[in-house]
Amino acid sequence: MKIPDPQNSPRRIKLTLEYDGTDFKGWQVQSRELGAEETGETARTVQGVVERALFRISGHPVRIAGASRTDAGVHARGQVASLLLPAEFELDNEQLCMALNSHLDKDVTAVRAELAPLEFHAMRDAAGKIYTYSIFQRRIRSSLLRRNHWHVRFALDSEKMRTGARHLVGMHDFTSFATKLKETQAKRVEDGKSELETVREVRRVDVRTDPLMTERIVIEVEGSGFLYQMVRTIAGTLVDVGRGFRPPEWVAEALAAKDRRAAGPTAPPHGLCLEKVIY
Amino acid sequence: MKIPDPQNSPRRIKLTLEYDGTDFKGWQVQSRELGAEETGETARTVQGVVERALFRISGHPVRIAGASRTDAGVHARGQVASLLLPAEFELDNEQLCMALNSHLDKDVTAVRAELAPLEFHAMRDAAGKIYTYSIFQRRIRSSLLRRNHWHVRFALDSEKMRTGARHLVGMHDFTSFATKLKETQAKRVEDGKSELETVREVRRVDVRTDPLMTERIVIEVEGSGFLYQMVRTIAGTLVDVGRGFRPPEWVAEALAAKDRRAAGPTAPPHGLCLEKVIY
Repeated sequence: MKIPDPQNSPRRIKLTLEYDGTDFKGWQVQSRELGAEETGETARTVQGVVERALFRISGHPVRIAGASRTDAGVHARGQVASLLLPAEFELDNEQLCMALNSHLDKDVTAVRAELAPLEFHAMRDAAGKIYTYSIFQRRIRSSLLRRNHWHVRFALDSEKMRTGARHLVGMHDFTSFATKLKETQAKRVEDGKSELETVREVRRVDVRTDPLMTERIVIEVEGSGFLYQMVRTIAGTLVDVGRGFRPPEWVAEALAAKDRRAAGPTAPPHGLCLEKVIY
Repeated sequence: MKIPDPQNSPRRIKLTLEYDGTDFKGWQVQSRELGAEETGETARTVQGVVERALFRISGHPVRIAGASRTDAGVHARGQVASLLLPAEFELDNEQLCMALNSHLDKDVTAVRAELAPLEFHAMRDAAGKIYTYSIFQRRIRSSLLRRNHWHVRFALDSEKMRTGARHLVGMHDFTSFATKLKETQAKRVEDGKSELETVREVRRVDVRTDPLMTERIVIEVEGSGFLYQMVRTIAGTLVDVGRGFRPPEWVAEALAAKDRRAAGPTAPPHGLCLEKVIY
């Protein structure tokens, strides 16, 4: 038996993760049983595979808290998770990343592990988040972009989308842009706040056309936090504007209505990517 | 039985294809048996799945000739294939694309079908090709770029790569940059010419750093044609220069040696993409 070193104490780690969401049922473990793989059916979640890898390399059950509970199919370039390593865990932060990556499938990567204050919590302490939503506009689908772009068959006017997007910037009640969860799921809401708090600050919405591939449009949104499916609803709404189905000013009306039915459709998950969490 | 319309005649089609090479054993059908799917094991090739789709929508065996016989794992945004549609085939070119796409898996797409002169042949008539080779440089792998970028763990100096690349531009004997095929495979050589003809014109080699993601380097090569694995060897050689393992002038020496052992390694297939065929 290993004797714990009394000089060591548990370490709080801020772990940055990148993942391809295609083959995941989202971030969150459905059943909290770590041993569920033995009993059979559990959905493959990012949290689940990372916690399992941490168990394998540390010999201890280690829980992780993600800054954002991304939905099935959503990608991340800079998801952040907090976790507590037991005192007797011997690897340094760089070794922790390498050990994790050797245990993780290629579609999830531990990019960086940093020491954080013991009280650090990835979701509670997040001061903002940056998401991108990628769109491919062409009559014919794309095989190369199919995993991380929403395929839109009609031409989009990116200038109109930009004009519409301006209405979203600022501190607003984003009820019209949030999918309501059932009461039992309410605690699962995107940024951990109560579902009743529907005011968020959107700091910027950039609509960019890829200079090397004009059929690609990327919407980048930075905000204090986001309601459930809010970025996907922003994307669906701006596409309604870009295709000429609605005028740019309609975005302001949709926002003012405080009614989900007033805004556009929820864009599919695979166009969304959590780029960065700001602390 | 359908009576062929005497007014109709066979149509030569120039078909532009996009594919994600990850799950293909390359372009070329290994066994020429169209019915091989019934007898069991055949490698999944792009040519094979497109010919099968053409058979399903036309009721006739239709052979296609690709401009480039891309290797397993290599992608294409603008592969071109020529084919002859039987006189009694009734769909127009746009309908042909739509019918093909409804029969093809999502990892291959018929982007465009155009009428071409009867004597048109996608490989023989190609006047040039443009390929990109994409590299991701970071100590830690990337989950999001893993399917179409070569992951290089050391830092690359793109300026040195650019200097080295200049030596490749022009009409040269590229023996040092070609993988020799066994005599029995010689007819499979990349651009359909005899393996003994090793002189090609490289028109430009651009080394670009992605302004939005500096860890991404894309090498774009345009040439009259390419020897077997030539672009991948150019990429492997420029990476040797970029990491400082060789000086930029070494590229000229490697070229002059006319010996495969003088150049750098063959970069892996999944970073390569056939962007365009020029006619």
